[in-house]
Amino acid sequence: MEELLHLGRQVLESQPFSVLIGTRVAGISEREVVLELPVREELFQQYGFVHGGVISYLADNALTFAGGTVLGLRVLTQEYKIDYLRPARGKKLVARASVVHAGRRRAVCRCDVFAASTDGDETFCATAQGTIVSVASKEEPR
Amino acid sequence: MEELLHLGRQVLESQPFSVLIGTRVAGISEREVVLELPVREELFQQYGFVHGGVISYLADNALTFAGGTVLGLRVLTQEYKIDYLRPARGKKLVARASVVHAGRRRAVCRCDVFAASTDGDETFCATAQGTIVSVASKEEPR
Amino acid sequence: MEELLHLGRQVLESQPFSVLIGTRVAGISEREVVLELPVREELFQQYGFVHGGVISYLADNALTFAGGTVLGLRVLTQEYKIDYLRPARGKKLVARASVVHAGRRRAVCRCDVFAASTDGDETFCATAQGTIVSVASKEEPR
Amino acid sequence: MEELLHLGRQVLESQPFSVLIGTRVAGISEREVVLELPVREELFQQYGFVHGGVISYLADNALTFAGGTVLGLRVLTQEYKIDYLRPARGKKLVARASVVHAGRRRAVCRCDVFAASTDGDETFCATAQGTIVSVASKEEPR
Repeated sequence: MEELLHLGRQVLESQPFSVLIGTRVAGISEREVVLELPVREELFQQYGFVHGGVISYLADNALTFAGGTVLGLRVLTQEYKIDYLRPARGKKLVARASVVHAGRRRAVCRCDVFAASTDGDETFCATAQGTIVSVASKEEPR
Repeated sequence: MEELLHLGRQVLESQPFSVLIGTRVAGISEREVVLELPVREELFQQYGFVHGGVISYLADNALTFAGGTVLGLRVLTQEYKIDYLRPARGKKLVARASVVHAGRRRAVCRCDVFAASTDGDETFCATAQGTIVSVASKEEPR
Repeated sequence: MEELLHLGRQVLESQPFSVLIGTRVAGISEREVVLELPVREELFQQYGFVHGGVISYLADNALTFAGGTVLGLRVLTQEYKIDYLRPARGKKLVARASVVHAGRRRAVCRCDVFAASTDGDETFCATAQGTIVSVASKEEPR
Repeated sequence: MEELLHLGRQVLESQPFSVLIGTRVAGISEREVVLELPVREELFQQYGFVHGGVISYLADNALTFAGGTVLGLRVLTQEYKIDYLRPARGKKLVARASVVHAGRRRAVCRCDVFAASTDGDETFCATAQGTIVSVASKEEPR
């Protein structure tokens, strides 16, 4: 568990884009991961809400991490679908992803993204479902 | 047409996140839009390719813009699906989105994302399909 | 509750295709619905499993019904994504759908499809996520 | 080409559900397939249009066939997304699927579904995008 958390943080720190955005691993266990992202103005769209692309990025990353807890480190998101539910604003985004089904090389995962206010209230903002695949074999780089 | 281009650029400039990422409107006409994004290291994941989240953001934004050419300025992406096809690297990303079908308040759009090398060769990296909705009526903010 | 069940059964009976397939409403409440489908050879693909199209049909219908419990009778599935997880065989299919988020005219719903064996064991076969919209206003018939 | 057509028809005839529905292979070549389905009342939903589940089935099957033209006979649809665009009625449904991108074991395919009237006019009714995978290795039966 501690090890998974350490590993997850290492992966995130090795992604320049995740460093640019400011994502953090808040929790990770087998089949589940929680990513957090402090909200700041740079991440907004034109109406003062977090840009959908930021939410998609976070969901995508959380899906990959969740899949990675069962398929190993060399995984990537093959595809996903995301539904935006409500505008996101507040103090931070929280993405909770889990494995719905895992085979040997494929995991179907889900991710719910919430916007947390300063006092901890959460608003459900988006939900995603996608396919994570192992690329350990290098057969298909993407 | 010139007006649409001007409008598109204004929208993009009013999105702090798009400014942070560096997206540009390369072309826009009724039912079609081309967005470009110069590739830089800050946008990478851990393997030296553009982060999937960046590609998703770009596709999402291009889908919204395409939908906006038929539904008007007050639109947003309600949901989309993206398939990553190949790792993205090179000089810039090019997202080409178009309207597949448009009703009064909904447009179904597609977007193909390419990675262009310095000499102009393009690699097909991702394809997305999604629903853009008009929020003119303010009935449903997302 | 009894009334919802009665209503759900009436809707299903008024769909010639659902009658052809043999779908039944097993349970329905606000935000949740369970559809069942007895498995028979006519519903198979070439390898002796239930055809994916049957599973999709059932998930689609369950999504619509779930959305209908919050949006009213005049609803339809606007779009959905389905992930097939395992081959489906056994005595019957069971589709459990629920509302993830509902606005005034749109509901995002999920559906898990299971294959139940004669002794009641269930295998998780597919999971879907989609958008149900109200067409009460007749603005956009689909 | 003739051989592909023959093969495609054999596959369809070996699917009891496709026989029940009445699907036909109208054309097939490398990377492309056209399936047709005569419309009859048994395939309707409660409003006199072809049931969405029938359209999904047809799109799913066409996606699989398209993928099969590049990946071989042992393929299946892993997942797909479908957007319903307009109600479907008329004389027959026509599903045109093609390969967007193919790797060694995976093909991303698209399918447009049209409703053709007696005089040959076509209405664009649905569009789908999905992942077809080879199961030749039997590693992952679904």
